[in-house]
Amino acid sequence: MFNSFGEIFRFTTFGESHGKAIGVIVDGVPAGMDFDEEFLIRELDRRRPGKNRFSTQRKESDTPEILSGVFEGKTTGTPIAIVIFNKDQKSKDYSNIKDIFRPGHADFTYFHKYGIRDYRGGGRSSARETAARVAAGAIAKMILKEVGIKIEAGVIEIGGIRAKTIDFEYAKKSEIFAVDKEKEKEWMDLIDKARNEHNSLGGVVRLRIKNMPIGLGEPIYYKLDNILASAMVSINAVKGVYIGNPNAHKLTGLENNDEISKSGFLSNNSGGVLGGISNGEDIELEVFFKPTPSIFKPQKSIDINGNEVEVNLKGRHDPIVAIRGSVVVEAMAACVVTDMLLLNTTRKIENIKKVYLNN
Amino acid sequence: MFNSFGEIFRFTTFGESHGKAIGVIVDGVPAGMDFDEEFLIRELDRRRPGKNRFSTQRKESDTPEILSGVFEGKTTGTPIAIVIFNKDQKSKDYSNIKDIFRPGHADFTYFHKYGIRDYRGGGRSSARETAARVAAGAIAKMILKEVGIKIEAGVIEIGGIRAKTIDFEYAKKSEIFAVDKEKEKEWMDLIDKARNEHNSLGGVVRLRIKNMPIGLGEPIYYKLDNILASAMVSINAVKGVYIGNPNAHKLTGLENNDEISKSGFLSNNSGGVLGGISNGEDIELEVFFKPTPSIFKPQKSIDINGNEVEVNLKGRHDPIVAIRGSVVVEAMAACVVTDMLLLNTTRKIENIKKVYLNN
Amino acid sequence: MFNSFGEIFRFTTFGESHGKAIGVIVDGVPAGMDFDEEFLIRELDRRRPGKNRFSTQRKESDTPEILSGVFEGKTTGTPIAIVIFNKDQKSKDYSNIKDIFRPGHADFTYFHKYGIRDYRGGGRSSARETAARVAAGAIAKMILKEVGIKIEAGVIEIGGIRAKTIDFEYAKKSEIFAVDKEKEKEWMDLIDKARNEHNSLGGVVRLRIKNMPIGLGEPIYYKLDNILASAMVSINAVKGVYIGNPNAHKLTGLENNDEISKSGFLSNNSGGVLGGISNGEDIELEVFFKPTPSIFKPQKSIDINGNEVEVNLKGRHDPIVAIRGSVVVEAMAACVVTDMLLLNTTRKIENIKKVYLNN
Amino acid sequence: MFNSFGEIFRFTTFGESHGKAIGVIVDGVPAGMDFDEEFLIRELDRRRPGKNRFSTQRKESDTPEILSGVFEGKTTGTPIAIVIFNKDQKSKDYSNIKDIFRPGHADFTYFHKYGIRDYRGGGRSSARETAARVAAGAIAKMILKEVGIKIEAGVIEIGGIRAKTIDFEYAKKSEIFAVDKEKEKEWMDLIDKARNEHNSLGGVVRLRIKNMPIGLGEPIYYKLDNILASAMVSINAVKGVYIGNPNAHKLTGLENNDEISKSGFLSNNSGGVLGGISNGEDIELEVFFKPTPSIFKPQKSIDINGNEVEVNLKGRHDPIVAIRGSVVVEAMAACVVTDMLLLNTTRKIENIKKVYLNN
Repeated sequence: MFNSFGEIFRFTTFGESHGKAIGVIVDGVPAGMDFDEEFLIRELDRRRPGKNRFSTQRKESDTPEILSGVFEGKTTGTPIAIVIFNKDQKSKDYSNIKDIFRPGHADFTYFHKYGIRDYRGGGRSSARETAARVAAGAIAKMILKEVGIKIEAGVIEIGGIRAKTIDFEYAKKSEIFAVDKEKEKEWMDLIDKARNEHNSLGGVVRLRIKNMPIGLGEPIYYKLDNILASAMVSINAVKGVYIGNPNAHKLTGLENNDEISKSGFLSNNSGGVLGGISNGEDIELEVFFKPTPSIFKPQKSIDINGNEVEVNLKGRHDPIVAIRGSVVVEAMAACVVTDMLLLNTTRKIENIKKVYLNN
Repeated sequence: MFNSFGEIFRFTTFGESHGKAIGVIVDGVPAGMDFDEEFLIRELDRRRPGKNRFSTQRKESDTPEILSGVFEGKTTGTPIAIVIFNKDQKSKDYSNIKDIFRPGHADFTYFHKYGIRDYRGGGRSSARETAARVAAGAIAKMILKEVGIKIEAGVIEIGGIRAKTIDFEYAKKSEIFAVDKEKEKEWMDLIDKARNEHNSLGGVVRLRIKNMPIGLGEPIYYKLDNILASAMVSINAVKGVYIGNPNAHKLTGLENNDEISKSGFLSNNSGGVLGGISNGEDIELEVFFKPTPSIFKPQKSIDINGNEVEVNLKGRHDPIVAIRGSVVVEAMAACVVTDMLLLNTTRKIENIKKVYLNN
Repeated sequence: MFNSFGEIFRFTTFGESHGKAIGVIVDGVPAGMDFDEEFLIRELDRRRPGKNRFSTQRKESDTPEILSGVFEGKTTGTPIAIVIFNKDQKSKDYSNIKDIFRPGHADFTYFHKYGIRDYRGGGRSSARETAARVAAGAIAKMILKEVGIKIEAGVIEIGGIRAKTIDFEYAKKSEIFAVDKEKEKEWMDLIDKARNEHNSLGGVVRLRIKNMPIGLGEPIYYKLDNILASAMVSINAVKGVYIGNPNAHKLTGLENNDEISKSGFLSNNSGGVLGGISNGEDIELEVFFKPTPSIFKPQKSIDINGNEVEVNLKGRHDPIVAIRGSVVVEAMAACVVTDMLLLNTTRKIENIKKVYLNN
Repeated sequence: MFNSFGEIFRFTTFGESHGKAIGVIVDGVPAGMDFDEEFLIRELDRRRPGKNRFSTQRKESDTPEILSGVFEGKTTGTPIAIVIFNKDQKSKDYSNIKDIFRPGHADFTYFHKYGIRDYRGGGRSSARETAARVAAGAIAKMILKEVGIKIEAGVIEIGGIRAKTIDFEYAKKSEIFAVDKEKEKEWMDLIDKARNEHNSLGGVVRLRIKNMPIGLGEPIYYKLDNILASAMVSINAVKGVYIGNPNAHKLTGLENNDEISKSGFLSNNSGGVLGGISNGEDIELEVFFKPTPSIFKPQKSIDINGNEVEVNLKGRHDPIVAIRGSVVVEAMAACVVTDMLLLNTTRKIENIKKVYLNN
């Protein structure tokens, strides 16, 4: 349960950043669907580090091996296992911090929870794990494509500077997945500055899901929005999430309510969810990433024996995790929506009859 | 699954606002614990409406009947069922909106998802359901008390006006659960104004959990923070959640990282969670409530046949749901932490030996 | 989890035999279905004790109160809560065995597991809990009826004497649910003899499920047959289960394999399940009940302080639990098949498209 | 969910018999335990075919690669992923049955459920998947060893001939895991005869679990015995299971009840389980295997187009699956008991305090 996500469309991940491999088993994939391996590789490539100066220069070869669940190009309904072997396992890089808890990292908590110090670059808590999520998300997107649902995300705020416009098409081409062409240069300068100062930046990712059917989400505790929230906050470095207009808590009811007309809602402050169920409008949400904890300035900490030490990190790290994080946001959203899509088929007796009686 | 929450400490709720009863079954309660029925009633009373002018004037008699799971004042380890019968079932109140979708409410989505219009005041989607959560939370708090964990919440922002200080002791006495005595009067005036204008307000609830053991939270998908996020966003009217310093995404790594000393962390921007696991500092988070959707101004909408109509609500509603919502925030947090507490006992082989071998 | 059963169609029970009430919450019921309350009552009535001399003379008034999930005669898709208040709570009956562990009962294990002695007639471990299962099963049967699936069970063996023929129509009218009219008298005599000797009998229940669609069951660990096995063995006093021909383990492959023709399988040794998935033939299985542990002869035991004592039970008990158990067998089977039915709708991409694209 | 088993100690398997690999992710393993890789290999070796004439002559190289969850010889608390690459993928062997449903196999049901014919030797439904279970079971046994619990199984009946004595020590050395030295020769002759006649045999496996703590099992639906039943019947070719004395349903209450003394139960008809909870006696159960469906005689069947055909299988198959099945029985039992062991640590408030307060 700890390393699984979803109820029907359920994936389970494994692996440490500097172990032999990471991977994922995706269960609950409907049978008979074309499996687009090229798409899977492209999605992993979008998350992959080392492509430009805005992400870590660490090279990871995210080549997926599909071990099961696909036969002659089609999904078989059995679990799809995907393994990505770690080829760049430089665990020596980490020997200088072997016994030290890095501020802002999970070293301290993993050590105390499990009594084990897996010092190899974060081990299980490393963002490398998110490659497995992106693989699961790629499969989810294949399913969503069959019913026309589309997911897109991009960076809407960096270092406190917020976009003025939202253009997801532009984000696809942008090196930093920027949703605002006008702000892109300013953001790049901020990132360069942070990197030069051995510092890092936080940011905000905006997500949109289009062509949503009405009715996805299982109240009261498996709502579309609370599971999206769970999915988002489970991503490394995410500290918050907001569904719909992120100022809703400052508005009055009159301002915030979305009136309804024959042709749909007249506004979308709700972000496409009412009572935890999709209302047919686009799902809109924002995800808040803290700055990368790996910075290259001296910091106070302690070692596993409780001695106070000064931490001086070396290595290669993203100056801002929100950028690559936006790919993970898309992946997790795709998995949530797919699960809700499958669950919802069981919620009306007429659907059950449609399937079994061809009514 | 849809109406259940938690893995070991798992509760399941049922009931509609204007049906016969609402209630909850709480499973996974450890045996042998004193069951404090007075405390349960007090907790329900804190959430109960109608106590002052800042909540709905609707009277609900939230008298819990404990049907099982407690014997001679002790928990037996079997499911604790609690039923609250609805005594004030004025479904006539709602006859004028029988076929109409109220803006900001779940009427529209429930109707389309299930094909049924349960027009009785929100039915299952009503905030009345949260009484069942508070009952579950009260039991969770009894468990947490056994190991010294304390949960408190209060209102930190109303209508965009934010507190300057955080005083949870004050919040306990405040009619509006205000964490800032200085702001209380200003907030009350805002609320009075909104009510007089037949409008409503949004707000923010702050939560703190004290005396947390290190190690609670099951990475990667059942982390302490992502399940807290799920719990919070599942609450009626909640649109967002932020763990730790709510400006983290605007900060640099140097500003946001919490340095570590022998005697603990030197700051708590993380909100007590690193890598999804508690680090021993207080858990701090904020929960963003939209304004109450029930306002008493004309609004555009449609009816179940697709005709455009003007909605004119009548009735009794909270001018701001965040106030009573703060009690639900506490309850849901208590349930999450209890579940994590129980799960974590199984994560080290030395604990297993301690229990079975008396090592 | 402990007191819940099923994944999509999931029910959760609560209550002790001599507490205030027992009950069940049934989640995952598809919306829009006619709810047949009369049928629910009839099903509970079939299980109810005290109707003839072949079951306990204890009167239980199994009047169900439906607290939620049904509106204007239709299921709403929200949880259906059913409570049965205990009116015949004679806990004094049990005072003489207050501190004693009854042989064959769960007294000993509950006491050691939970550290609590709920001596009121078995408490949670009482067969009274099965009324809640029958209520859940009745709802499952309403769903199965919509697609034509029929479930029937009866007694096929008592005290080692086995039926020669299987006639479920006869079983419906038989006071002891006997599937063989010829054996009925012999079995009744055996039961009378056992009761007169203050002893009890074991027996075997045969289950048949007709009109099964092909394809129900989710391999590898949520197969139709292993979940049926789980369901059956969870019933009080059940010690074993066998799917298909109960001599299969004595046969050769040539004898046991069911050959296949255009018009279906040429035999049904498999009991309608291959690889954990229904093959369209009738599901056939047998359920093995131990004799009622409550007998009225002196037995050696110990008390909660470890002292050796002689137990002398008094009271009213079924001379054989398999009879009323056959109603519970039906109920549990109905719940399993319903869950599998709902799950299976999600397993082919063409079904998903059928529901969302009206393909 | 479909391919996962367990609640806390949860494993998920993947892979087809003639795909690239099979494997398992084991989640919920307590941290800090010595990981005995040699033992894992030995366990897989016990299940491995091709060792003698009593199992299939097909060579499978069950070499496990541990991809995660173990660091410096210790479990880390993160998921342990184990992959076994398939080296002997002779899918040509199966070309002659490409479109044909083999009697007694899952070909028919998988095709209809998923709409896909993965004709490569059973694909996901192949008994090869059980190697993944044995790997999970080996890890479970490492945990059980820490608290002294021991699991053993052997063959107690073949072709209707039942053992007279039960000697698990002998079974360990026996080529056919026979629990009765006296019967071993007779059974071997039966097997030779069946193989020579191109036929196969069914059998019964007996399981014993020693040194059980009192209190394992979570009533009412996650009982020790019903989950053991689920685990056993999920194994390929298993049709039935019986806990305790397999004649209990033929006995009277007086005969079947186990009386209790200061020093324990005076008999063990219950098989160590009362009310679904372990009573401290040995767990005893029997598992009923049907004969191997792969026989080398002409059989009637149909192809995927509905044409009637004669099936003539070739290849290498076990003449009786119960033998190697006994290793899988042990593995599944180990997983169940481990899960129950971990769950039970959370069921008494005194255990929770012991872990967190060092009481």
